Amino acid sequence: MPKTKVLVVGCGRVGKEVVTAVQESPDMELVGIVEQPHVVNDLRKKIKDIPVVTFEQVKELGNVDVAILAIGSRLIPEVAPLYLKMGMNTVDAYDIHAEGIVRLRRNLDVVAKENKVVAVIAAGWDPGTDSIVRALMEVIAPRGITYTNFGPGMSMGHTVAVKAIEGVEDAISITIPKGMGQHKRVVYVRVKDGYEFEKVAEKILSDPYFSHDETYVYKVNDVSSLVDMGHGVKIERKGVSASAHNQRMEFTMSINNPAATAQVMVAAARASLKQKPGCYTLLEIPLIDFLCGDLEQLICRLV
Amino acid sequence: MPKTKVLVVGCGRVGKEVVTAVQESPDMELVGIVEQPHVVNDLRKKIKDIPVVTFEQVKELGNVDVAILAIGSRLIPEVAPLYLKMGMNTVDAYDIHAEGIVRLRRNLDVVAKENKVVAVIAAGWDPGTDSIVRALMEVIAPRGITYTNFGPGMSMGHTVAVKAIEGVEDAISITIPKGMGQHKRVVYVRVKDGYEFEKVAEKILSDPYFSHDETYVYKVNDVSSLVDMGHGVKIERKGVSASAHNQRMEFTMSINNPAATAQVMVAAARASLKQKPGCYTLLEIPLIDFLCGDLEQLICRLV
Repeated sequence: MPKTKVLVVGCGRVGKEVVTAVQESPDMELVGIVEQPHVVNDLRKKIKDIPVVTFEQVKELGNVDVAILAIGSRLIPEVAPLYLKMGMNTVDAYDIHAEGIVRLRRNLDVVAKENKVVAVIAAGWDPGTDSIVRALMEVIAPRGITYTNFGPGMSMGHTVAVKAIEGVEDAISITIPKGMGQHKRVVYVRVKDGYEFEKVAEKILSDPYFSHDETYVYKVNDVSSLVDMGHGVKIERKGVSASAHNQRMEFTMSINNPAATAQVMVAAARASLKQKPGCYTLLEIPLIDFLCGDLEQLICRLV
Repeated sequence: MPKTKVLVVGCGRVGKEVVTAVQESPDMELVGIVEQPHVVNDLRKKIKDIPVVTFEQVKELGNVDVAILAIGSRLIPEVAPLYLKMGMNTVDAYDIHAEGIVRLRRNLDVVAKENKVVAVIAAGWDPGTDSIVRALMEVIAPRGITYTNFGPGMSMGHTVAVKAIEGVEDAISITIPKGMGQHKRVVYVRVKDGYEFEKVAEKILSDPYFSHDETYVYKVNDVSSLVDMGHGVKIERKGVSASAHNQRMEFTMSINNPAATAQVMVAAARASLKQKPGCYTLLEIPLIDFLCGDLEQLICRLV
């Protein structure tokens, strides 16, 4: 079997883990890493055995089957079509829930079909594998309520969002569960020289990433000493199956966040090869397509 | 949208719950129940608003989309093809793991394709939704070990199996977790007049359903007072995602067993309508196909 040729776009926390996960996958081959021009030279010195290129140089890498986009969610709607138009499947961990995902799916579905390729979106752990857990719980008990409780842990999506706000030099956003699916957010910010903390905090509180949640913003001098990549989730459902009430289900996870995200994206890259052209969330793909190995052997072992 | 016409085959503990789950599904219509000739008359008196027929009378019910087979696993390989050949999709909760499921899938795949229909097999909670959880955990952490711990609770498959053994008047089989995926089985048996308990116990212990586990067989005069349909499972995995070790996941469930089984079968009946002809385990079907409702609304709510 020829190995799947994978390109990793972005080499931040998630991208680095995607590189490792691709290298650990027996059915995949890493063809290169794409980064922005000002980062490329530094990265080339660090990573000697993998080609590091800018977007303009991607074609020099030859044939690519899947591009894994380990970049901020807000860049995905604009960047994913560029790779789809080059004839590559794409995978992202786009995390703007609800309408955001539905809109991205509609737009990329058109581009993917035009170019006869596949886009797998929202392929992290939430949205992503947690979405599968929520759907599964409704299969077992269609009536009832599901609570998704995150953290405590650093939210990567929210941290990227807050870092993009004017006046923020460095920051992290921590998600703290209040129970029953309710959360607080605590944001630690180092303000850029010449900016006023109060005005930066106001901008953060009015950002759509934060405006729906109870949010606290604190000023700090050093963000790096607060950073820990551990995160967690607890998904609970109490519901009704047929005539039986009080059916109880719970899924808990304690993980290194960028590593789990990266690993799910790599599994989604594998699954993308088995789908017809179009755009998919994880719910729309058979779970067996994400796994490496012989179909009957997987069924024998897992079913 | 025309409602899916569902036939329920077998009206035991699971079958009764399937009837309720179909009646509660807004997209489904119950066309009838199939039972053995000696049960039909009694059942007709109890259930007045649903046609109850024998296998020979099934054609009198008119068009059927899906037959849900709520019968013992050992009957499935022989019974499922009868319904597939009548042009109906079938759903079962066949529970003889590993090679049993692989063999059934191969055989029904041929019959289903010949008759341009769909068979969904092993569609209970284990095998079934637990299989999805196990696969999902491997998507997140491909290296590691998963432990599935059952119970304490009555195993329906094992209870049906022990009841089918010669000399058994009535029985239940309880599954007790020993931790780390190990189990004991405790079987309570009321022996038929004229049979010796020791010889019946020996037969039970040598049955393939029991011979692989630490099993204890006890003689009782009344089985009914021991029966409780509650059951549970805890699936644990500790593994590696990308460069991160100690990724921990756990799924627990505390349920009315026949009700959960029935509800999953009904969801599988819905999903069967969206698949191409052939035989499928739950791992081979996109999770969204099991749910009732508009695709984009489901994505918006669950992803």
